[in-house]
Amino acid sequence: MDATSVPAAGSTALLTDRYELTMLQAALRSGAAHRRSVFEVFTRRLPAGRRYGVLAGTGRVLDAVENFRFTSAQLGWLADRRVVDEDTLRFLADYRFTGDIHGYPEGEVYFPGSPLLTVEGSFAEAVILETVILSILNHDSAIAAAASRMTSAAGGRPVIEMGARRAHERAAVAAARAAYVAGFAATSDLEAGFTYGIPTTGTAAHAFTLVHDTERDAFRAQIDSMGRGTTLLVDTFDLREAVRTAVEVAGTELGAVRIDSGDLTLLAHRVRRQLDELGATGTRIIVTSDLDEYAIAALAAAPVDGYGVGTSLVTGSGEPTCAMVYKLVARAAGPDGPLVPVAKRAAGGKTSIGGRKWAARRPDADGVAEAEVVGTGPIPDALAPHLVQVPLVKAGEMVGRETLEAARERHVRARAALPLSATQLSKGDPVLATELHV
Amino acid sequence: MDATSVPAAGSTALLTDRYELTMLQAALRSGAAHRRSVFEVFTRRLPAGRRYGVLAGTGRVLDAVENFRFTSAQLGWLADRRVVDEDTLRFLADYRFTGDIHGYPEGEVYFPGSPLLTVEGSFAEAVILETVILSILNHDSAIAAAASRMTSAAGGRPVIEMGARRAHERAAVAAARAAYVAGFAATSDLEAGFTYGIPTTGTAAHAFTLVHDTERDAFRAQIDSMGRGTTLLVDTFDLREAVRTAVEVAGTELGAVRIDSGDLTLLAHRVRRQLDELGATGTRIIVTSDLDEYAIAALAAAPVDGYGVGTSLVTGSGEPTCAMVYKLVARAAGPDGPLVPVAKRAAGGKTSIGGRKWAARRPDADGVAEAEVVGTGPIPDALAPHLVQVPLVKAGEMVGRETLEAARERHVRARAALPLSATQLSKGDPVLATELHV
Repeated sequence: MDATSVPAAGSTALLTDRYELTMLQAALRSGAAHRRSVFEVFTRRLPAGRRYGVLAGTGRVLDAVENFRFTSAQLGWLADRRVVDEDTLRFLADYRFTGDIHGYPEGEVYFPGSPLLTVEGSFAEAVILETVILSILNHDSAIAAAASRMTSAAGGRPVIEMGARRAHERAAVAAARAAYVAGFAATSDLEAGFTYGIPTTGTAAHAFTLVHDTERDAFRAQIDSMGRGTTLLVDTFDLREAVRTAVEVAGTELGAVRIDSGDLTLLAHRVRRQLDELGATGTRIIVTSDLDEYAIAALAAAPVDGYGVGTSLVTGSGEPTCAMVYKLVARAAGPDGPLVPVAKRAAGGKTSIGGRKWAARRPDADGVAEAEVVGTGPIPDALAPHLVQVPLVKAGEMVGRETLEAARERHVRARAALPLSATQLSKGDPVLATELHV
Repeated sequence: MDATSVPAAGSTALLTDRYELTMLQAALRSGAAHRRSVFEVFTRRLPAGRRYGVLAGTGRVLDAVENFRFTSAQLGWLADRRVVDEDTLRFLADYRFTGDIHGYPEGEVYFPGSPLLTVEGSFAEAVILETVILSILNHDSAIAAAASRMTSAAGGRPVIEMGARRAHERAAVAAARAAYVAGFAATSDLEAGFTYGIPTTGTAAHAFTLVHDTERDAFRAQIDSMGRGTTLLVDTFDLREAVRTAVEVAGTELGAVRIDSGDLTLLAHRVRRQLDELGATGTRIIVTSDLDEYAIAALAAAPVDGYGVGTSLVTGSGEPTCAMVYKLVARAAGPDGPLVPVAKRAAGGKTSIGGRKWAARRPDADGVAEAEVVGTGPIPDALAPHLVQVPLVKAGEMVGRETLEAARERHVRARAALPLSATQLSKGDPVLATELHV
């Protein structure tokens, strides 16, 4: 594919900090550009009080690396603005990633120091992927971590993602995807259905009731159009009256009612009792209204059949990003040759450990994870069956693609293998310690 | 333009909650779809402790409304998944917004209850814009509000946006734009430069030093490539040694040094002294490393020449979204005729005020704003010169387009017209009370 054949909207090449390209230019001149290099994505800490992290976005990273091609319009702009010189522009025009990427598979849990993604190639080809890789993983993993706490708190009840209106319009699509990886049942976001095949669902807004002359007219219109299995929003005027009207209009086969305000525990009990008295024993109750994992947990004993979560999901429930970084950990003296570990060592707590890492999750005798072991040397035989990283890109070929269902199932397994305290919502330390094996 | 001519990537039509389209279907059957309707975007509260809000994203809303066209691939998907019926698909295939939009212009400040955007058209054409309009305004305004506090705290010193790696890759571009509206000087994000013409800038990463054999080699390579005016990163190994090497390599014309870790106040003083002793009195000091408005304010007395802000900017400095909603406030009985105010009135604090609103910012005798007046009746003569809303879309035509520079200048003026306490960083009430004039 030559540069001009890349559609501008699909190109990820400019989702990049300017310094990546100017470092590339300087490295092309100094010769360092061709040194074989290993970059690692990891995080020094989890958000305060969180027990585990959840990696999401890996599939989107593969798409982004594949679409990291410069269009002629982009190259023209870089030239016009003198962002980089002619030599660098020629390099960018031909750019495609030809190296290797290993990493934690999507949906996997992680801990401080886990080597989440290892990118190996020339310095030139690997350094310029930094920004877009971190953007994707930091965002998607923040959402997945919050989503995992919510699905865990919800037990077996379905949790629906409906936060698009509280997030950037494209971030919302990625958020729906990350939430699905972490166990959400569906999303309200049509683009997430269109792009990723995630199930979409929805109810109705207060505006729909208000645009009709009466609530009864609105309910009748919705039933006529969507059938009796639909979900009626019952808190526009008076909840009790609305529930009565809903069952009068839809009959006892009414699918569900949605409550979007008030004391949800109290109201869910009242509405359940009323529905049962009206004979609508199969009508479900869906609650929404600024829910987060704590509110979901608090509703565990209430007669609720599903949760709709918006703001707190798309903002990572207080932690809207992760602290993942992309660091050079080793490089050779040329295109080949032995890799030399490198690391920053200045003051300020931002030091890191040089050398390419492997990671294993060591189980105890009962199969419960007991440590995240991260090492730079040879892999001990006992840990070999428990390595976490998988190949994602080999010599520029995407080998790590999988379905979202696969990531979703992996997340359930990975979370279930953690010590029981992992799903406590209260603040605490990471549930596994990271052991360094050097 | 017919549906098939819309490029899929440019279409905003599926950045929409499923219920917007199912409400449309039900309203097309009931006839309510054709009722003239007025929707308003407003927020019931500012984030706790914030003194004012900053509206951003208006320009992006105009783009999104213009590109709200369904492609044949999208329509085919909606049909396959039976999201909506044939009649609704026909409506969507021909959809373009033909109504009117008024609103606060971009960069303007706002308060609880300010009518930020008023969308008027048929119920059908206005209801389906809800999700994408809220996504854009909630995200961009959250970023702009944080950015405004940071530029205010920085006084005249430039603040650079470099948070792309901590945000969704496309949200990062919008964040750079919103930050620019609120006074940031530049961004590291190349796509923001390419798409919006925002100045881009950058320095170098620790990886650039580490890929070379010595720090001196790295500095020389960067100077050779970028010239002596470049910014050298001086905290990879030993700060004091790095500053000495930097001036040896670049001479006293070195543009700037960047410090990315440690006690920035202390280090800035030390580095300034050292640079001065070395004769590099014109070399600037740029600081980065998890800065927010408080850290910026704390550095006011330090010899710092510019701030790079990442995480806290793109996450809204603790408030990553706004609480803006899109509510039906009035509707007619048909396509024309008198508008009837409508409002939700159920329990739970989510009630709203019916009727189309105007807004005026009333100045005191000195020209300082003293109240945000929001009304539904006739506009008092005294307030007529102080109305805040402007026309944005007239009968489907975009009439509110403007340059980012215009929004940027408006923000400076609007903020300067607020009472002095507006720019206090400490928590407090909104600096203007919203007076309801009905």
